[in-house]
Amino acid sequence: MAEGLQSIKLRDIHITDPLFGSYSKLVSEKMIPYQWEILNDRVEKATPTYCIDNFRIAAGVMSGERKGVVFQDTDLYKWIEAVAYCIENGSGARFERIVDEAIELVGQAQQPDGYLNTYYTVTAPQKRWTNLVEGHELYCAGHLIEAAVAYYNATGKPSLLEIAKKNADLICNVFGRGEKQLQGYPGHQEIELALIKLYRVTRDRSYLECARYFIEERGKEPSYFREEIQRRGGSEFFHEFDNYDLKYSQAHMPPIQQRTAEGHAVRAMYMFSAMADLALELEDDSMLEACQSVWDNITKKRMYITGSIGSSGILERFTADYDLPNNTNYSETCASIGLMMFGQRMTSITKKAEYYDTVELALYNTVLAGMGMMGDRYFYVNPLEVVPGFCTDHSYMMHVKPERQGWFSVACCPPNIARTLASLGQYIYARDQESIYINQFISSTAELQLGQGKVHINLESGLLQDGKVKLSIHLPEPIPCSVKIRIPKYAQHLKLRRNGLRTECKEENGYAYFSEFDSGENLIELDFGINPRWVCANDQVRVDQGKMALMKGPCVYCLEEVDNGENLGAIYVDPKTILSEGHPIEELFGELPTIEYDGMTLTNAGVEEDELYGVPRFREATIHLKAIPYCLWNNRGRGEMLVWQKVQLSNNSEKCN
Amino acid sequence: MAEGLQSIKLRDIHITDPLFGSYSKLVSEKMIPYQWEILNDRVEKATPTYCIDNFRIAAGVMSGERKGVVFQDTDLYKWIEAVAYCIENGSGARFERIVDEAIELVGQAQQPDGYLNTYYTVTAPQKRWTNLVEGHELYCAGHLIEAAVAYYNATGKPSLLEIAKKNADLICNVFGRGEKQLQGYPGHQEIELALIKLYRVTRDRSYLECARYFIEERGKEPSYFREEIQRRGGSEFFHEFDNYDLKYSQAHMPPIQQRTAEGHAVRAMYMFSAMADLALELEDDSMLEACQSVWDNITKKRMYITGSIGSSGILERFTADYDLPNNTNYSETCASIGLMMFGQRMTSITKKAEYYDTVELALYNTVLAGMGMMGDRYFYVNPLEVVPGFCTDHSYMMHVKPERQGWFSVACCPPNIARTLASLGQYIYARDQESIYINQFISSTAELQLGQGKVHINLESGLLQDGKVKLSIHLPEPIPCSVKIRIPKYAQHLKLRRNGLRTECKEENGYAYFSEFDSGENLIELDFGINPRWVCANDQVRVDQGKMALMKGPCVYCLEEVDNGENLGAIYVDPKTILSEGHPIEELFGELPTIEYDGMTLTNAGVEEDELYGVPRFREATIHLKAIPYCLWNNRGRGEMLVWQKVQLSNNSEKCN
Repeated sequence: MAEGLQSIKLRDIHITDPLFGSYSKLVSEKMIPYQWEILNDRVEKATPTYCIDNFRIAAGVMSGERKGVVFQDTDLYKWIEAVAYCIENGSGARFERIVDEAIELVGQAQQPDGYLNTYYTVTAPQKRWTNLVEGHELYCAGHLIEAAVAYYNATGKPSLLEIAKKNADLICNVFGRGEKQLQGYPGHQEIELALIKLYRVTRDRSYLECARYFIEERGKEPSYFREEIQRRGGSEFFHEFDNYDLKYSQAHMPPIQQRTAEGHAVRAMYMFSAMADLALELEDDSMLEACQSVWDNITKKRMYITGSIGSSGILERFTADYDLPNNTNYSETCASIGLMMFGQRMTSITKKAEYYDTVELALYNTVLAGMGMMGDRYFYVNPLEVVPGFCTDHSYMMHVKPERQGWFSVACCPPNIARTLASLGQYIYARDQESIYINQFISSTAELQLGQGKVHINLESGLLQDGKVKLSIHLPEPIPCSVKIRIPKYAQHLKLRRNGLRTECKEENGYAYFSEFDSGENLIELDFGINPRWVCANDQVRVDQGKMALMKGPCVYCLEEVDNGENLGAIYVDPKTILSEGHPIEELFGELPTIEYDGMTLTNAGVEEDELYGVPRFREATIHLKAIPYCLWNNRGRGEMLVWQKVQLSNNSEKCN
Repeated sequence: MAEGLQSIKLRDIHITDPLFGSYSKLVSEKMIPYQWEILNDRVEKATPTYCIDNFRIAAGVMSGERKGVVFQDTDLYKWIEAVAYCIENGSGARFERIVDEAIELVGQAQQPDGYLNTYYTVTAPQKRWTNLVEGHELYCAGHLIEAAVAYYNATGKPSLLEIAKKNADLICNVFGRGEKQLQGYPGHQEIELALIKLYRVTRDRSYLECARYFIEERGKEPSYFREEIQRRGGSEFFHEFDNYDLKYSQAHMPPIQQRTAEGHAVRAMYMFSAMADLALELEDDSMLEACQSVWDNITKKRMYITGSIGSSGILERFTADYDLPNNTNYSETCASIGLMMFGQRMTSITKKAEYYDTVELALYNTVLAGMGMMGDRYFYVNPLEVVPGFCTDHSYMMHVKPERQGWFSVACCPPNIARTLASLGQYIYARDQESIYINQFISSTAELQLGQGKVHINLESGLLQDGKVKLSIHLPEPIPCSVKIRIPKYAQHLKLRRNGLRTECKEENGYAYFSEFDSGENLIELDFGINPRWVCANDQVRVDQGKMALMKGPCVYCLEEVDNGENLGAIYVDPKTILSEGHPIEELFGELPTIEYDGMTLTNAGVEEDELYGVPRFREATIHLKAIPYCLWNNRGRGEMLVWQKVQLSNNSEKCN
């Protein structure tokens, strides 16, 4: 087996960061208990999920009709996975009993042959595996497996892992190229990466082979999906799947041949994450090459500055290179989580730091924005520009909500945020045989066994404040080890100190490299020299032309109506305006500085108030602006929000005639 | 009966205008024969319509399955209506035999009780009138009636009129508030205005009363539609009608109470056109007030500068005030035709000219743009900004086609353009007892009986060239009559001459008023003083903020890639730039001047070509621009197009700090 980077156990990591700590705390204190109530339909006004009842019905302990979406089971699995990470990171012990009871129920709902899916078991038992395109059986199985692996890792309890293995064994049996096997693959990828996790915990190679089969079989001609749809005679659950486009689920060609990110963004991310895992496990360079090409296509042509993806709300998809509308986009929270998963794996294989620039963008902006500061409101869709009055039904902003919502009938995002935040440690630290990798600058402590000795790490990050990070490494005795600290792309004036003394940076694959540590305390201080900066998009991104976005470190900043008044689109900013860091807004998480600067507004006095069109009579006025981190928007009520601001040129641009 | 403005018979009007004449000629020479081939499925590569075959099957002269959309019959009716206008205007005699044969077929397809609809007759005879929401039976009947009235007016032949009357009699019988009647109304309004036309030609008041019933019953509670949907248990033909929104078809409240334009734009326009007719016929002020309010809402808050409506491609709808996106809009050609119909009626009732400013906008821009110069390619959707590469499936530009299309499976627009252009005279001239109204400045001749004498008019319009219009009125003898010439809103320096001598303008309701004519030739010369001008939108239209559109008279101008290179969004224009009229582009219709001016482009050299984001390093370059009339865009190949151009400020705006 090839050696990639390994995670450090969550139980050995403790998040102390004021920003992420606040969100992480919400996970165990608010989200987990709230979501449990949701799964049990005990929250007034929330759309019922029927989730637990469905399992009861499938288990035969309750009677009635199974309800909810076809993949509703995953709500419970994702919840269990999040709880598992909480248990492992020390914040979830009190849920263990509830989970154990839920696992017992899941076990009762499992069929003797290992099959486990409340929809097909209760509603359409004769239709098992007949609708891979829409039925989500393999998707549900994948989340079951992920939950089982996480819960086993957290507690050592085998009960859910046994259920998952039995289910996976059935799947490995049903699908494949053998004579009596179905030569299909999932409509929503997820089982692939789950099977690889199961392989890694059980070392049973049949799971790895099954994952490989799903990736390799996908997209071959004649198309299994096309033939399946023909057999069924059309769509069954989702009429938007009439005239099914194979690109939607990346089944238009074998994934290994794909070079651009197409179709449903979450499906794509889960699939390429799995392919990256396989590339590592199988040492398959052509798989890695496909992953790298798609990664490049995303990050160089199809990604928002907030690390979000999926330009279109119509089927939550990628569209075309440079098509990045700011107010009608989808930019699903789950897709950014998928992008984090994909990036983490790319670094794990290549041991190059660069992928984490994107992971960081996704995490600090879109994923954090996905959750409100109360922990019970979520964004599914993450626009970069909102005028609340235009977000009406039947418009192209219909999927864009100007305020976070309580719960969604298709509730993928909230539990996905929960499991990501609860397992955040895996994105901060990684390791191989003798090196410790620092990939994110989130204040925390960690300890790990390296060779003979236990290494203690204390990471104190002022990344979002003064751009300084302090890392203390405590070795019980001098052991051969190295520390690699990611140098983010935005750090243009990196200054290093080791044990108080200035030192030069030894760079390796995007990491600052340190070795030869003394026993006891070793102190590394980094100053990334981070100031607020204006960022522009490639001119091919037509909607961002003549505009700038404000960033500081990985954080995109935005203007909100509450600070700057309405009609944010009238604002123009000179690229040379002085950017001053202001006091954090007290009620917001993380003590993040605001950024203040002067701009101007351009309005037109040439149109009568009650007329639609008139003449140009432009008026400029100065305005003092205050920007806040994008991840914190809409925590102070409903209002306009804007990321990309128009540029005001006053003899600042070069004239080339 | 109240007296509104009357039309002048099409047979008495002859269009001589170079622009409109070219399009009108296309109607009889290209569209009518081409569309007949389409209706008969004899055009290779065109999606079959099954239209004529459906009538054959319903008539029992052919066997097989009825195919096509549920309202496919209207393709034939609209075609007949267009042919009728051609016959009347003198360009369609050669089609009369074909129409008569088609009418015979239509008659054979009619059921003994008068029912006439190929879908329900062949496919679902037991389901008549069970699905008013989606079934389009009353919509089809309306187009049948409109065709019949037009053909009767053109030829005096009663055959189709008899068929239509028999059908209308059935409808008047089936629907109403009587005990055995259905208390429903159409899902797609159209029957109402058709019944009023039938009333006007037959003087049978039951048709007028039935139209009134449909308008007055609509939107009452409990909702007929909601109950019907409940009876059927969901959508039948169009799954986008699941969770049916009553606003979609303006059935959310009685039309007479409506004050804003909601829902499907074409449905709304047809309904309010009918209500305007009723307001006139019934002298009903509250109906007129509703029409006026909705008209104001459209023209002051929900209309594009091109006279197009329907901001959303999702169900082709109105959305919210000032929500007027330029690249994801619907702006259906048919909706602008509906707006013309509505405006014409408003002027007819009020005898005020102002509505024709909007009619003119719609006609000169969106409706003309709807058809290509070859007469066989059409725009359904009329964007104001196109980057072809972004018009991909599954994006919010998916309905926007960067090039005109051959035919559409739901082919409302092409025949609607045909019937509008073939009956263009009705939008130029109108009359009442003693006045002649000139509402549009399209070169043409007309004659009409006024009192005892026949008046000859010759209208020579240079509106789109030098802004001068010459009207010669020839009276055989001195009869009391007046001529009212609309003063368009854009005419800011009107100069008048009468028989060669400067004269003052007597204005009445937006018309320049002339009377006391001598026998023989009377010459009126108008100089509207029309120069190219920049127009701005209300600041509430966020997408147009800091932008300007170029107009000359009623024509919106646009930039095309073929003249100005790609990346039109990078262009900035100083409002004070000198606008020069250039030579017309030879291959385009109408000898319309181009408009040339200097602008600048703003590009950014701070982003690497193969990167998505970078730093600001703006570069300005001058560019010489050439704009053409919007109606003529995309007649020289595929490329970018832009109406709203960014404003470049160089000390031209007022500073108010």
